[in-house]
Amino acid sequence: MPLEWSGLSPELLLTIDRGSAEGLRAQLERQIRDAVRTGRLEVGERLPSSRELAARLGLSRGLVQDCYAQLRSEGYLATRVGAATTVAAGACPSPAPVPPPPAPPRLLADFRSGVPDLSSFPLADWLWATREAGRAMAVTDLDYGDPRGAPALREVLAGYLRRVRAAAADPQRLVVCSGYAQGFALTLRALAATGVRVLAYEDPGSPGPTRAAAARAGMTAVPVPVDEHGIDVAALAATGAGAVLVTPAHQWPTGVVMTADRRLALAEWAERTGGYVIEDDYDAEFRYDREPVGALQGLAADRVVAIGTVSKSLAPALRIGWLLCPPALVGLVVTGKHLDDRGSPTLDQLALARLLECGRYDRHLRRMRALYAARRAALVDALARHAPELRLTGLAAGFHAVLHLRTAEERHVVRQALTRRVGLYGMSANRTTGRADPPRLVLGFGNVTERAVPEGIAAVADLLR
Amino acid sequence: MPLEWSGLSPELLLTIDRGSAEGLRAQLERQIRDAVRTGRLEVGERLPSSRELAARLGLSRGLVQDCYAQLRSEGYLATRVGAATTVAAGACPSPAPVPPPPAPPRLLADFRSGVPDLSSFPLADWLWATREAGRAMAVTDLDYGDPRGAPALREVLAGYLRRVRAAAADPQRLVVCSGYAQGFALTLRALAATGVRVLAYEDPGSPGPTRAAAARAGMTAVPVPVDEHGIDVAALAATGAGAVLVTPAHQWPTGVVMTADRRLALAEWAERTGGYVIEDDYDAEFRYDREPVGALQGLAADRVVAIGTVSKSLAPALRIGWLLCPPALVGLVVTGKHLDDRGSPTLDQLALARLLECGRYDRHLRRMRALYAARRAALVDALARHAPELRLTGLAAGFHAVLHLRTAEERHVVRQALTRRVGLYGMSANRTTGRADPPRLVLGFGNVTERAVPEGIAAVADLLR
Repeated sequence: MPLEWSGLSPELLLTIDRGSAEGLRAQLERQIRDAVRTGRLEVGERLPSSRELAARLGLSRGLVQDCYAQLRSEGYLATRVGAATTVAAGACPSPAPVPPPPAPPRLLADFRSGVPDLSSFPLADWLWATREAGRAMAVTDLDYGDPRGAPALREVLAGYLRRVRAAAADPQRLVVCSGYAQGFALTLRALAATGVRVLAYEDPGSPGPTRAAAARAGMTAVPVPVDEHGIDVAALAATGAGAVLVTPAHQWPTGVVMTADRRLALAEWAERTGGYVIEDDYDAEFRYDREPVGALQGLAADRVVAIGTVSKSLAPALRIGWLLCPPALVGLVVTGKHLDDRGSPTLDQLALARLLECGRYDRHLRRMRALYAARRAALVDALARHAPELRLTGLAAGFHAVLHLRTAEERHVVRQALTRRVGLYGMSANRTTGRADPPRLVLGFGNVTERAVPEGIAAVADLLR
Repeated sequence: MPLEWSGLSPELLLTIDRGSAEGLRAQLERQIRDAVRTGRLEVGERLPSSRELAARLGLSRGLVQDCYAQLRSEGYLATRVGAATTVAAGACPSPAPVPPPPAPPRLLADFRSGVPDLSSFPLADWLWATREAGRAMAVTDLDYGDPRGAPALREVLAGYLRRVRAAAADPQRLVVCSGYAQGFALTLRALAATGVRVLAYEDPGSPGPTRAAAARAGMTAVPVPVDEHGIDVAALAATGAGAVLVTPAHQWPTGVVMTADRRLALAEWAERTGGYVIEDDYDAEFRYDREPVGALQGLAADRVVAIGTVSKSLAPALRIGWLLCPPALVGLVVTGKHLDDRGSPTLDQLALARLLECGRYDRHLRRMRALYAARRAALVDALARHAPELRLTGLAAGFHAVLHLRTAEERHVVRQALTRRVGLYGMSANRTTGRADPPRLVLGFGNVTERAVPEGIAAVADLLR
């Protein structure tokens, strides 16, 4: 029986596998859809009658009829009364599949900042907390929840922030979010709604992400210099900004702590101008020489939005953070969170609450402080051995430090190091102005093992001079 | 020893508890911060010397000195050389705590739509999948991930969407998000970036959330009527909209399926005008009388953004959804996701991938289809008994149906039902225009037990006439 169909016999276009777990009708439907999408069957092309196709493929006519009916109701096929079934006008070929991106190269040592030691993630504790939280959860906890986050987590977290960060933390002004990026985006959109048009940020800082987030909120971002006491508040006042992003506990990336005078000047600036301070409290859990300085938020809770996250204390992949909002902004932030994603995943929140409550979170932090302090010591040692003439600055805190180069050029060092499979990062990426300043590297030691630290430094030592 | 300090002796302002787990210095610091924040200690007020305070509280002088130093570095206290320690100017009292909102009333039966049966959530399966995924996870999976989502989930999900929704699903054009709300918000911002200014949406539909999301993306939202074949494509074309939000598989809330003619007309409209179709594929897993109609996305993958979610198939609290993007939008959507929250939680994604892979997700859906079909039958029965003269419409699908009232007024019925502890919801909340249309109720039966359905209907039967 000759059959005109794309110049191919149906047996070549369609292959029915009777051994497959996929039903016969599903196979037939899928293959006809694919033939339309890939353009093997073209718009207007006639299909064999259900009787013909059934006979050729050894299927029942009813099955082919059901298949044609399904594809007609989905718009792939069309049948005019008394005429043949054709490929419907409007059924377009699908775009070609996109290949996945290539994997990044493996490094001997990667001194990237901002990532904690991922291999120390307390997986067993997290799974335990998830199970416990899941079992204790009420059925109503599975519904859309309060966009501010699970009340149980907000309660426990407020207690934690009061205790560990000396924050003025009220659960009703705490909003759970998915990490710093979302917390910052929500804050900027809330501020934009109150009329803030200019955001100031620290220089050095994170110009790329900060400027991109400001642009997304319709704001202009202006850099303000940081010195060894923290941000220059007089320079901030001169910008006319309505809000400023700061890292008081451990300035990113210079590693200085904001002094009391600057804290008070910043609080005074906010009070006087009606401005807001956004406090990125990103790694304040980790200070190795003394108690960390309390959050600026505790000093001026009416004018500071404090953003925290477990990305540094546990792992970025958990995507849990929080915002401690001033009364004037909390409503706008909550509305934004509700519109953006209706709230963060509840079970994850309840697991974190459990981890905080039972003391395992604190225990993990104690273990991590010892580990990072050892890595920092390894870095100090390795540099003292291989590049004793270079200065390393930054508090004994967090997991990065700043290496001051002397004659070497940042970009050259970074590029050459990569050929030796060592990831190095120049300070100029953190600068908005003053890119001609003395060359410096920002060395992250969070996710490099204590053994890889000296290996990595040894491999690039000659480049650093 | 008389001591001038807020007119109170230090013993009244500060209470040191030697039996507490909190260290003595932490207690002292916390209590002084609280006294500053609550205004019990005022700006400029002198504190006792460290020697005096130590003696009065029976603490070591060094401890009090450390405490004062910490509070100075945080900006609460100030000391001028040779002068007393005072409360620093700039340390502001904190806002008063906000009471939590009241709990909603308990209902006999709540016919709210859009919520699945929460008590059927497969908690044991979910915890199992989380544990399995956690144990199989690579250390690098704990880092910030691909903003499009975990490759493992995108791979499995694409296969699922091809198989179950007849979608043209390519993992590289699939973006994992936190549910419909985020998927929609990301789509609108991506469309706004391509110049779309007007969004059309179905009427009846979800005017409130749709208009709010459009406004947040800087767009105008215009309603387009829906009839028994789906959205009126001629009316859509007349609006000049650049994008349209539709629910083809099971129109929300009328419950009709979009016909093949309308599907093709919509694809043709998009092709001709360069417009985009946003397909909210919210409950397509649940059809009780036949195979669900495939996603519109499969028919016009270049012009349709399909948004899916596990909010109806598993639980809203998981906050997992996905976007299947046309090639021209995927980059913008991914950039938006990266800026908004850097990606969804990885472990949750890997758990869902595991659940899909091992067949437990399909098994759960089969169980739920039987359960919802039974609830729908109970609703049909209860109405046939108590209000036989009223018409119930909507496909045998999802978990809502539309009840056509005759003389009763929607708002009156809804208000009176609440006094009998039955949650009813009027169609007018879903209307943008035509609020004077015949009164209808949208009855959700997803989260009402099979027993509560007839009880609830019996309790309000006289109101429905």
